Amino acid sequence: MKFEVTILGSSSATPVFNRNPSAQLLNCNEKFYLIDCGEGTQQQLTKYNLKAARIDYIFISHLHGDHYFGLIGLLSSLHLNGRTKAMQIFGPKPLLEILEIQFKYSDTSLRYPLEFFPIEADESRLIFENQDLIVKTIVLNHRIPTTGFVFQQKQRQRKLIKELTEEIPMAYYTALKKGLDVELPDGKVLKSEDYTTPPDPPRSYAYCSDTMYDERYFPVIAGCNTLYHEATFMHELLDRANETHHTTALQAGEIAKVNRIDKLIIGHFSSRYKTLQMLLEETQSVFENTELAIEGKTFQL
Amino acid sequence: MKFEVTILGSSSATPVFNRNPSAQLLNCNEKFYLIDCGEGTQQQLTKYNLKAARIDYIFISHLHGDHYFGLIGLLSSLHLNGRTKAMQIFGPKPLLEILEIQFKYSDTSLRYPLEFFPIEADESRLIFENQDLIVKTIVLNHRIPTTGFVFQQKQRQRKLIKELTEEIPMAYYTALKKGLDVELPDGKVLKSEDYTTPPDPPRSYAYCSDTMYDERYFPVIAGCNTLYHEATFMHELLDRANETHHTTALQAGEIAKVNRIDKLIIGHFSSRYKTLQMLLEETQSVFENTELAIEGKTFQL
Repeated sequence: MKFEVTILGSSSATPVFNRNPSAQLLNCNEKFYLIDCGEGTQQQLTKYNLKAARIDYIFISHLHGDHYFGLIGLLSSLHLNGRTKAMQIFGPKPLLEILEIQFKYSDTSLRYPLEFFPIEADESRLIFENQDLIVKTIVLNHRIPTTGFVFQQKQRQRKLIKELTEEIPMAYYTALKKGLDVELPDGKVLKSEDYTTPPDPPRSYAYCSDTMYDERYFPVIAGCNTLYHEATFMHELLDRANETHHTTALQAGEIAKVNRIDKLIIGHFSSRYKTLQMLLEETQSVFENTELAIEGKTFQL
Repeated sequence: MKFEVTILGSSSATPVFNRNPSAQLLNCNEKFYLIDCGEGTQQQLTKYNLKAARIDYIFISHLHGDHYFGLIGLLSSLHLNGRTKAMQIFGPKPLLEILEIQFKYSDTSLRYPLEFFPIEADESRLIFENQDLIVKTIVLNHRIPTTGFVFQQKQRQRKLIKELTEEIPMAYYTALKKGLDVELPDGKVLKSEDYTTPPDPPRSYAYCSDTMYDERYFPVIAGCNTLYHEATFMHELLDRANETHHTTALQAGEIAKVNRIDKLIIGHFSSRYKTLQMLLEETQSVFENTELAIEGKTFQL
């Protein structure tokens, strides 16, 4: 099952040096989940040949503009381009008010249903579930209410061993894949474990947009396979990071290490850094398996 | 005196084919006036090495998103980059409500004064005047209240003929430049017309963003030197143009011709046109001196 994320924006606060504000596109089993939507996200999607029309779910972490100013434009373009299927949006409650006031004054009645699910940033909650994954919030520590998101694949069924099962009626496949033993009409019992192999373990991706180092959210991200974490500043600017409720590159590495993450992606880089290599090296000094969130890059999760 | 406009966006409705939504930067005597501000305008300014910080006046024609979705991001970036000088914004009254709700929920107190001047779209009005120019609104005919803008240089003073005036005390320059004759202490009279030449005639630029053909606004744009006019569709789509309250390329040419414009710039091209040559040719079949609004291009006015 495909489980990958493409970076559309890695900049903090203001767009600079060809870095766009935060946005990522998650592809899970050919369903598309947009995570944050800074200004210019629709142009970024076009640039990387990703179809905005295929997005069905949008998750907004908080109401600082570099995480949502592109949303109204994206939704408007989908409307103008004839979308009819519903769009589900998860975000802070006032986001709907911000969208509706703009639709009102442009006299826009969306051609598609917009389904809005307000997020509270008080405790980690399960906010979404479908056949492929569940989404939980991560309560982050930023200047305004902010949540990250854990996208966790669901436990999949066991896999049939094709050579062994092709003689068995298909009617029994479902039970075997569920791990159940089945009895044939002649009394013969087929043990699931003989005809199937265990499923791939479910994988998980945690997205921590804007936050300062705060151990209270560690339990929610602990053990995730991949963690995206902001690393706005070098550690020499720790005071500035604390003051603005952001994380340093060194801290991002520590967070990944402490929480037994397999792979760390850092992003949300301050506009003061024209190049990013030193941020990467600082994080890698603590946590080796780190990569930079670079516009257009796709990570297998 | 510098009087030029740079195109930042020429697309209608949705960004396509590297065309951005509407935005133009007017430079009049090294003061900068932004006209409309579609999504990605701040990125466009960066792309063309234009300094957002130098903009002091912003004019928004109407509240369709392709004309203002970039404004909140631009204003936020100026705030984050430490702007302290005031920004004057002219636009439909609800625009302020749209901005304020977003500042409120991001807990942003702008570091610079935002001075907002609501525009009514009921009749043409003088809405701004400084030493260089006046700005008048053009009441357009679109689906929601919409105004264009005429930027008209003020009558300048007569120009001193340097070789003739260098023997005259500087104290008399001002009067001579104003066209007044002056009497020297010895009784000699200096005639202004002998020592000065007429000023360059004031020039004017009319911006008609979104509108259908409507003769009611012709008197306001008549005789302007340069007219930017939308030309969303080819004339074969006249019905669609009327239905959506837009103008065809042919009509744009007729408007320029009827109103004795010197030079016409067409823009706001529908996303259905991948290339623009046929739109240009259609307009030029009626009005020869037409150019396309192309991103990054600067027109001397």
